[in-house]
Amino acid sequence: MAELRLDPVQRRWVITGKRPSLPAALESGVECPFCPGNERFTPPSVYERKGKDGQWEVRVFPDRAPLFRIEGELDRAGEGMFDRMNAVGAHEILVATRRHGVTLAQLSVEEITEIVQVYRDRILDLKRDHRFRYVCLFKVQGRSGPPTQEHSYSQILATPVVPSLVEAEFRWSQFHFRRKERCVFCDIIQQERESARRVVDEAGGFISLCPYAARFPYELWILPIDHASSFEQDLAAEGRAASLAEILKTSLQRIERLSLRLRMVIHSEPNMDAKRPSEDWWSTIREDYHWHIEIVPELEPDLNDFGPEGFYFNPIPAEEAAVVLRALEPAAADPSQE
Amino acid sequence: MAELRLDPVQRRWVITGKRPSLPAALESGVECPFCPGNERFTPPSVYERKGKDGQWEVRVFPDRAPLFRIEGELDRAGEGMFDRMNAVGAHEILVATRRHGVTLAQLSVEEITEIVQVYRDRILDLKRDHRFRYVCLFKVQGRSGPPTQEHSYSQILATPVVPSLVEAEFRWSQFHFRRKERCVFCDIIQQERESARRVVDEAGGFISLCPYAARFPYELWILPIDHASSFEQDLAAEGRAASLAEILKTSLQRIERLSLRLRMVIHSEPNMDAKRPSEDWWSTIREDYHWHIEIVPELEPDLNDFGPEGFYFNPIPAEEAAVVLRALEPAAADPSQE
Repeated sequence: MAELRLDPVQRRWVITGKRPSLPAALESGVECPFCPGNERFTPPSVYERKGKDGQWEVRVFPDRAPLFRIEGELDRAGEGMFDRMNAVGAHEILVATRRHGVTLAQLSVEEITEIVQVYRDRILDLKRDHRFRYVCLFKVQGRSGPPTQEHSYSQILATPVVPSLVEAEFRWSQFHFRRKERCVFCDIIQQERESARRVVDEAGGFISLCPYAARFPYELWILPIDHASSFEQDLAAEGRAASLAEILKTSLQRIERLSLRLRMVIHSEPNMDAKRPSEDWWSTIREDYHWHIEIVPELEPDLNDFGPEGFYFNPIPAEEAAVVLRALEPAAADPSQE
Repeated sequence: MAELRLDPVQRRWVITGKRPSLPAALESGVECPFCPGNERFTPPSVYERKGKDGQWEVRVFPDRAPLFRIEGELDRAGEGMFDRMNAVGAHEILVATRRHGVTLAQLSVEEITEIVQVYRDRILDLKRDHRFRYVCLFKVQGRSGPPTQEHSYSQILATPVVPSLVEAEFRWSQFHFRRKERCVFCDIIQQERESARRVVDEAGGFISLCPYAARFPYELWILPIDHASSFEQDLAAEGRAASLAEILKTSLQRIERLSLRLRMVIHSEPNMDAKRPSEDWWSTIREDYHWHIEIVPELEPDLNDFGPEGFYFNPIPAEEAAVVLRALEPAAADPSQE
């Protein structure tokens, strides 16, 4: 079984060991295992959202070769000075639609609203398992072939540790909060709304903006304007999922005018019910942290050789990227409107 | 001019703005601007190490389209709540040999010793400029075409901030030191020498090992066995550069049996003479930190979609990688021995 190891110098986790191979029953020449009628080529559903006709509209099942597995004990242990545990967790695939070759941006606001609600349902369900400290929901679009021929899906990972990037965000959000007694994201939103230079859209209580120190050209963040640390709690309110679906569709449409290849990730608070380390940033996270969505188009290969040292080079400053993104008319790329 | 921006949430720097384009005089159809006789296609040397015949053997000059530039003031400033400064720094290219199409591993130990001494000379020289907080020396081999047809070079970056990866190492090394009053790297070396499972080579006061939580298959670190925080101070001792050259050659030869594409970086203490932030990790760094070299072969494209969240997947545990690397006979790949 794969295991998680902590690097004592860089303090980040790595999953190491063989990834399970595809079960023989699922190895097949079928063209798209995510299409309706091909369900036997994927593991059984853990969740289905059904349409009026009783057919699934959104379907969630375990990854066929999961990085983490749900069964077993964590078995946290030392190996001399090192720290390890079993790679217990969940790795799920969320098929967003029955329709093959349609991107998330091309679905209707109603369909995206349904998907956002499934995101929420899965996060709530996985957080009931107190072994899992974090649930990460992300999407990689267009990496493995022509994106328009792909079947739209997202991935969900529930992990017994907090991924290092969000952990850094928790730490530094708290650092800001301690000095100011204000959420750093709320401060960013206030300043960006005043200058408007890096804002792309604002609607239904959400704002999208190009972050001041964007790592990548046209990187775009979507944030709730009012403070909220938890995606799933914020989206509990009536009509909130539809509002998010609206700005998410607009944002993805703008990005798709630049690239059909993109990454998208939800950053939200950790599982507050999990057994947690004594680290003090955990205790104040609901005041410090602010959930948001990060979208990055995958354009040219990154030509910055220095990237692996944590030093990004972005030739397009955020305020210039925002001008370009605002000018891209989202509707033009949308076949569902035709 | 490009500028450095700090992300207030993730606390990492990004260089943003246009990279200067190649000066017209240097744009040419010349096959290899790094070959002897083509010096007019690169900026003038800032450093040359000459052979007995008076010709340069190792040559250093500013990058033709540098990420940082040496002239000007930093002009640290706030932009509301954000932080920025000019991208003042140095970006140099070090051509390692007159011979085209020979990798660093294929040079003789004597030649590599000379190169290591040039590394040291450049770091010492750049650290005399107190605007620069860190000097990063790294090498990307084989990314832009067939590596055996490439001309071997390294890059040197002197930056007014500390790159986030080494900054994280400084912080967590101190975290360990505070509890144990021992250097975390010294502890790693002691434990790894005792078990020997992840050790690859040991010679001349240096050790090479696959780190316990390696991010990438066959990742290999070279460390001085006795505590030393500074590359350039450690290498001042008589015969020390030759000892490093020896294990560096062996290590690179082993890695090249797996891949001619690789990355290599030296991690060392920051510029202790630079104007420095008040952060307390800076004050004890000479006891906490331990310089080392990290080498990573670039094998298959990384199939871990979760990588951008700081979560690595490495299918080959470090102790298995060490078995493979130890078994790879380095001399076989070495034409200079023929």
